[in-house]
Amino acid sequence: MKATIERATLLRCLSHVQSVVERRNTIPILSNVLIEAEGDNSLKVMATDLDLQVVEHMDASVDSAGSITVSAHLLFDIARKLPEGSQVSLEAAENRMAVKAGRSRFSLPTLPRDDFPVIVEGDLPTSFELPARTLAELIDRTRFAISTEETRYYLNGIFFHVSDEAEPVLKAAATDGHRLARFTLPRPEGAEGMPDVIVPRKAVAELRKLLEEAMDGNVQIDLSASKVRFTLGGEGGVVLTSKLIDGTFPDYSRVIPTGNDKLLKLDPKSFHEGVDRVATIATEKTRAVKMGLDKDKVTLTVTSPDNGTATEEVPAEYAADGFEIGFNAAYLKDILGQIDSDNVEIHLADAGAPTLIRKDENSPALYVLMPMRV
Amino acid sequence: MKATIERATLLRCLSHVQSVVERRNTIPILSNVLIEAEGDNSLKVMATDLDLQVVEHMDASVDSAGSITVSAHLLFDIARKLPEGSQVSLEAAENRMAVKAGRSRFSLPTLPRDDFPVIVEGDLPTSFELPARTLAELIDRTRFAISTEETRYYLNGIFFHVSDEAEPVLKAAATDGHRLARFTLPRPEGAEGMPDVIVPRKAVAELRKLLEEAMDGNVQIDLSASKVRFTLGGEGGVVLTSKLIDGTFPDYSRVIPTGNDKLLKLDPKSFHEGVDRVATIATEKTRAVKMGLDKDKVTLTVTSPDNGTATEEVPAEYAADGFEIGFNAAYLKDILGQIDSDNVEIHLADAGAPTLIRKDENSPALYVLMPMRV
Repeated sequence: MKATIERATLLRCLSHVQSVVERRNTIPILSNVLIEAEGDNSLKVMATDLDLQVVEHMDASVDSAGSITVSAHLLFDIARKLPEGSQVSLEAAENRMAVKAGRSRFSLPTLPRDDFPVIVEGDLPTSFELPARTLAELIDRTRFAISTEETRYYLNGIFFHVSDEAEPVLKAAATDGHRLARFTLPRPEGAEGMPDVIVPRKAVAELRKLLEEAMDGNVQIDLSASKVRFTLGGEGGVVLTSKLIDGTFPDYSRVIPTGNDKLLKLDPKSFHEGVDRVATIATEKTRAVKMGLDKDKVTLTVTSPDNGTATEEVPAEYAADGFEIGFNAAYLKDILGQIDSDNVEIHLADAGAPTLIRKDENSPALYVLMPMRV
Repeated sequence: MKATIERATLLRCLSHVQSVVERRNTIPILSNVLIEAEGDNSLKVMATDLDLQVVEHMDASVDSAGSITVSAHLLFDIARKLPEGSQVSLEAAENRMAVKAGRSRFSLPTLPRDDFPVIVEGDLPTSFELPARTLAELIDRTRFAISTEETRYYLNGIFFHVSDEAEPVLKAAATDGHRLARFTLPRPEGAEGMPDVIVPRKAVAELRKLLEEAMDGNVQIDLSASKVRFTLGGEGGVVLTSKLIDGTFPDYSRVIPTGNDKLLKLDPKSFHEGVDRVATIATEKTRAVKMGLDKDKVTLTVTSPDNGTATEEVPAEYAADGFEIGFNAAYLKDILGQIDSDNVEIHLADAGAPTLIRKDENSPALYVLMPMRV
C-alpha cells in the first residue's frame, strides 16, 4: 500500500476514529486502525473496540492498493504534530508502515490486516432517516440521564422504541432510576415495526461527536434487534456500527406521572442559578436542596452540618397549596440546564411523588425527577 | 464585624488568597480565611498554610469593626456564583457569618480570629525592589527546573544569591540534577550582603500568580535568612510572606561548563517542533532523543522497541566535528520553549558532558542539560 494524503484530511479522519480505540487494550490489534487503499483516490480508515466500529473514507492519491493496521493514537499524534499544509505519504512494507512528511520520517510497527476484527452486521431490516439536528437534540436531551451503574447494564444506553398513540411516534428514553429523560418525535418513514433497541453510552457519545461535523444533512439509520448502523454524510461519509445492549429496558412509562395537580412555573435560568448558589454549601453527604412552595414563590434551602445553611427566594407562578419537597441539587440542575426557554413547567403531587418537568405541553422532551427526603 | 463589599472585589481578592489554602487540612482553621474590618473603608483578608501567607486589603464599606475566620473555598465558591454587580454584606454574629446578596442568604460556620496562625516575620534586614516584569521573567525562566523530589528538599525552590563578578549581580537558580536554569541580573540597590535563600516552589507559584495582576509596578522584597516578604502594588496591595527552605543549595556553578568547544546554532522553534515530532514515538521507558551532528545539520532520532523509529533533519549552523549525543526529549523541549528568539546557542563538548544552552552571550538566562546515554 502506498498513498499520499493531506495532513488536514488525515488529522480530521483520525480524530473521528481514534476515540473509539481504547487507550489500554489487552488485544494488541484493538489499539490499531485499519488503513485500506481502495481505487485511485480514496483511503478507508476503520477503528473498533469489538462493540463499536467507525469507518470513514478520505480523499487521497493512491499509488498502490493494499491495507495495513497501525497504532491509532500514535498515527493521530504524529498527524497532529506534522506541519500545517504538509502532504503525508503512507507506505506499507516489511511489517512496517513508513510515514513521511517534510523532513520527518517515521517507521511504525504494523499488524496484518486479516487479524483486524470486523463487526458482522447481519441483516438490518429496519431503515429510516432522521435529520442530523434532530438526532443531535434527541441525544443532548436524554444522554445525561443514562445510568453509569454497570450492574444495571440495561440502563447504560438510550432506549429507542416506536409507539402508536394519537399519531405514531418514535421515543428515546434514558434513566438511572433517579431521573428519567424522554424525547418524542413523529415516527419516521421506515421505522414502523422497529424492534425495541438500547444504544450503548459509548456509541451515543461517538455518534454525537460525528454529528457535530455533519449537522446539515440527514442520518441513515439501519437496525436489527442486535445491531445498529448510523451513516452520516451520505456516500463516502462516516459509518458507525454498534452492537446493541442485550437486555430489557424497564417499562418506564409507568413512572411518568399523569395526575400531578400542583403546577409551578418559573424561569429555568434564574432557578438554575439559585439552586447552584444554595448548593454551594452542599457536601457529599447532603446533596439535597429543599424547595418550599408558597403562593408565587419558591424558597430554596440547603442545610449542611459542616457548612451552615443557605437560602434563596425565587419568584414563580404557583397557586396550589404550599408544601415542601427535596431534590438532588445536581439532578435538578441537569434537567433545568436542558430547558431552552424563559419558562419551565414543574408538575408536583406531594413530597414523595415523582415530579414531571417540561418546557411546555408541546415540548418533545419530558423529564421525571424522584424527590429526596429532606 | 459588619461590612459591605462589591462582589467583583471580593471575588478577585479571594481568588488571590484561596489557592494558598490547601483543599485538605487536618487543622480546621487552616481551611479558613481571616477577614478583618479595619477603619471605615477597608477589609483585610489573610490566608495561610503555616509556611506561606498572603494578606490583601480590599475596599469595603465597614459598619462595625471586628474580625472572623470562615472557610476560604466556601466563601470563594459563593462569591463566584453570586450575580455580577451585586453588593455583598458580611456580618459576624454568634459563631456564624451571614453572607447576603440579592435574594441569597448564607449562614456559615466560623472559627475565632485568635486561633488563626500568623507567620512571625521577625527582622527582615535585607530590602530591595525589582520591577514586577523582571521578577516574573526570572520565575518563568527558572521554575520549570525546580525539583519535585521531596527527599531533595533543598532543591524544591528557587535559589537566590548575590555575587561579585565583573559587576555585582543577583542570581536565581533552580535544578533537579538533570537540568539547571539560571537567571542573572544586576544586583539591586539594598541587596548587598544578602543571605543565600531558597524560596519554596509553592511561594514561587503563588507569587507568579499575583504578579500577573501587578505587572506594571515594582515589587518590594524584604528578607532574612529564614523568611521573605514580597509586597506588590504598594500600600494596600498584596503581601506574600513565606518561610524559606532550611537547607543548603549545592554549589551549582561547578556544573556550568565553560570549555565546551562545539557550537550549534539553530532556530529554537523549528528545533522544538522537530524534537516534539520525533518524541511522539517515545514511551515511558525510552524518553531519549538522539541528536546526530554533522556539518550544518542535526538529525534527530528516536527509537522505541514498541513504537518503531522516527527521524527528522533540522537545518543548523555547525562547523565542528560530527558526533552523536542524547537528551531527555521533554527536558530539551522545556529549555527550547524558554528561548524567545530566532536563534539558540547550544554549546557541546562530548556525548557524556553537560551541555550549555542560551539565547546568546548577553542573555540573562542560561541553561545546562545533562545528556542521556542513547
